[in-house]
Amino acid sequence: MNVALEPARVHGFRFAGTSAGFKTQPGAKDLGLIVADHPCAAAAVFSANKVKAATIYITMDRVRGGRLQAITANSGCANSFTGNAGLKLARDSCAAVARETGIDPNLVVPSSTGVIGHLYDLAKYQAGVREAVRALSADGLADFAQAIMTTDTRPKVASARFKLGGKEISIAGAAKGVGMLSPHMATMLAFIATDAAVAPPYLRAALRHAMPTSFNAITVDGDMSTNDSVILMASGDAGNAALRARDRAALNDAVDSICAALACELVRDGEGATKLVTVEVRGARSVADAERCARKIANSPLVKTAFFGCDPNVGRILMAAGSSGAALKSDRLVLWIGGVKVAARGSLLLDALAAAQEKMREREFGVRLDLRMGTASATVLTCDLSYDYVRINAEYTT
Amino acid sequence: MNVALEPARVHGFRFAGTSAGFKTQPGAKDLGLIVADHPCAAAAVFSANKVKAATIYITMDRVRGGRLQAITANSGCANSFTGNAGLKLARDSCAAVARETGIDPNLVVPSSTGVIGHLYDLAKYQAGVREAVRALSADGLADFAQAIMTTDTRPKVASARFKLGGKEISIAGAAKGVGMLSPHMATMLAFIATDAAVAPPYLRAALRHAMPTSFNAITVDGDMSTNDSVILMASGDAGNAALRARDRAALNDAVDSICAALACELVRDGEGATKLVTVEVRGARSVADAERCARKIANSPLVKTAFFGCDPNVGRILMAAGSSGAALKSDRLVLWIGGVKVAARGSLLLDALAAAQEKMREREFGVRLDLRMGTASATVLTCDLSYDYVRINAEYTT
Repeated sequence: MNVALEPARVHGFRFAGTSAGFKTQPGAKDLGLIVADHPCAAAAVFSANKVKAATIYITMDRVRGGRLQAITANSGCANSFTGNAGLKLARDSCAAVARETGIDPNLVVPSSTGVIGHLYDLAKYQAGVREAVRALSADGLADFAQAIMTTDTRPKVASARFKLGGKEISIAGAAKGVGMLSPHMATMLAFIATDAAVAPPYLRAALRHAMPTSFNAITVDGDMSTNDSVILMASGDAGNAALRARDRAALNDAVDSICAALACELVRDGEGATKLVTVEVRGARSVADAERCARKIANSPLVKTAFFGCDPNVGRILMAAGSSGAALKSDRLVLWIGGVKVAARGSLLLDALAAAQEKMREREFGVRLDLRMGTASATVLTCDLSYDYVRINAEYTT
Repeated sequence: MNVALEPARVHGFRFAGTSAGFKTQPGAKDLGLIVADHPCAAAAVFSANKVKAATIYITMDRVRGGRLQAITANSGCANSFTGNAGLKLARDSCAAVARETGIDPNLVVPSSTGVIGHLYDLAKYQAGVREAVRALSADGLADFAQAIMTTDTRPKVASARFKLGGKEISIAGAAKGVGMLSPHMATMLAFIATDAAVAPPYLRAALRHAMPTSFNAITVDGDMSTNDSVILMASGDAGNAALRARDRAALNDAVDSICAALACELVRDGEGATKLVTVEVRGARSVADAERCARKIANSPLVKTAFFGCDPNVGRILMAAGSSGAALKSDRLVLWIGGVKVAARGSLLLDALAAAQEKMREREFGVRLDLRMGTASATVLTCDLSYDYVRINAEYTT
């Protein structure tokens, strides 16, 4: 599927992004709103972190029925580890949206990102909501994407068109990263809207189908946020016929593609990142082994600093693989960097290192490790570890 | 036990450190030698990494009999992932020591640290061994400690005296770190000599006893080396009587203390480290839970950059705990930084953060998390993640 990294209209949805004053930079957008013309089918996945934000508990509860009509999302404050006060604040924030739009409060979900442990000012939120409701527009996705940014250097949007039940369907989404970004479960915030007519169970299945190859296959720092959420809403305004088996594949394909594009954008803009690296482990004895090994390589600080330094440091990659717990034998594995074979038969191919280093100077390259122990494989997208990652996370409270 | 961070003599042992030309700085010591006057009881533990250095295989094999007489250790080249050529090189290196000293080659073990995947020059090694044998001295432990350094900024030695079987016993050791330093198994290189008379099984038991609270309880970057080894030799030259049950406790205590002191020195000199942080998790449902949780906090790049920035970022610590897999409830846990309580009953104690930040400005402080789920606990020593860690690992091949 052809995915554009551009905002797009989706029938039945309006978007806004305004400044409520949560971010320290004056005028910076920090309150985003998505409002549907009518209740929509909805599905969501959340952080597996046992410390969860107040917003997650409320969204989990309200999305259970499979229908939502509005999402209100702020940056600059995560409203996580804030106890009962945080839960009340998130509910009151949704109530403000309900009041201004006439939407049933149980169909409004909150989402927050920023510093953990702090509460934001409700009066600011309410004023921000009033402004956001006035600003709602079918063309507002870019503003919304800007409003949810934290350490992101640019907004992330993706959109596509596809056919379903004889109709042209639109799907578009926005996401934010770009630190505390990692394993197992949806990562950070992503919001996706489509005008397809889809029953909630199918929508849920499509979202779950997309996770392993998108948001669950990326890492910036191996740290899993307390606020991770991916929410998918379907308005049905495209007027397509009821989904049949072969349409579900098209829906899954579309959701997969949008999620993968947004996930890739998150890593490309990872905190301090200068490289986007695809780590592929194949020939593993099991998928769990392949994932464990790919993830260990993708999260190793030594491997990631070598990426930053364009250092074809085969030893660090093998060190990470060997300590991952995956079944392997050092004299069987074969390793490529940027398509250049750099290790085989238990030895480095020293003559190949200069060519590998050339590949590493590019903005994007791949590391492929064939364990030659079986047939399972896994791929993880990661970035390098640079001075800027340290600067961003040591100099500011995030 | 009183441990001095000073070299000391140990009856029956001589030490040397010389320059064989493996390091790029001219004249830098890079070949260390430990020679005992006669075969000694010996025990060793090794890296659990499935990619292991050639030296590890040889040492594993030769220490199995419980007796060793010499250790030859080089820096500047890890001789890891070097296939059969690496095995031959390590054996030939030991043979050079055997030839120059008249020791049985099967009682000589090799140890290497430095870049993975490369071989060193045997002629240089042989010349270095000749010089080292001439330089052997009862006072040579400081030179030896210097010869095994890689990115270490200073040599690490520790020594102590204790009573065993009515005799005064000496124990002293040297270790090197300070990157690719982490989980589960002995970490990097440590060599410990004692003049106690101890049978190999008791020595092995003492070394294993020391691991969980020393080398296995530290981390710099969560990356486990391919060359990790801790070797303990006992000459018996103190002439103590055969060990009885209560003497074993004294031996264990001495080995524990030396290992813990060396391990702590490694983290204190962790690559780019400016802080030494003790992460203690208590009140866990199981020791495995406590370790998992402490290790996740200690390895989190976000937590470690916050340490570097003296940022009392409670949210990042709780994020790490919550994603560790340990059983916990966010409204039960209590967190202290530098002895200052900063989180309890599901909320941050915002008024306490300034005091916690003051504690974080010190060179050493503790993080204590009580999960209040059970009675198990674990402690991990870690350091911060600074610009210098990135510099050291991006600018040089290590």
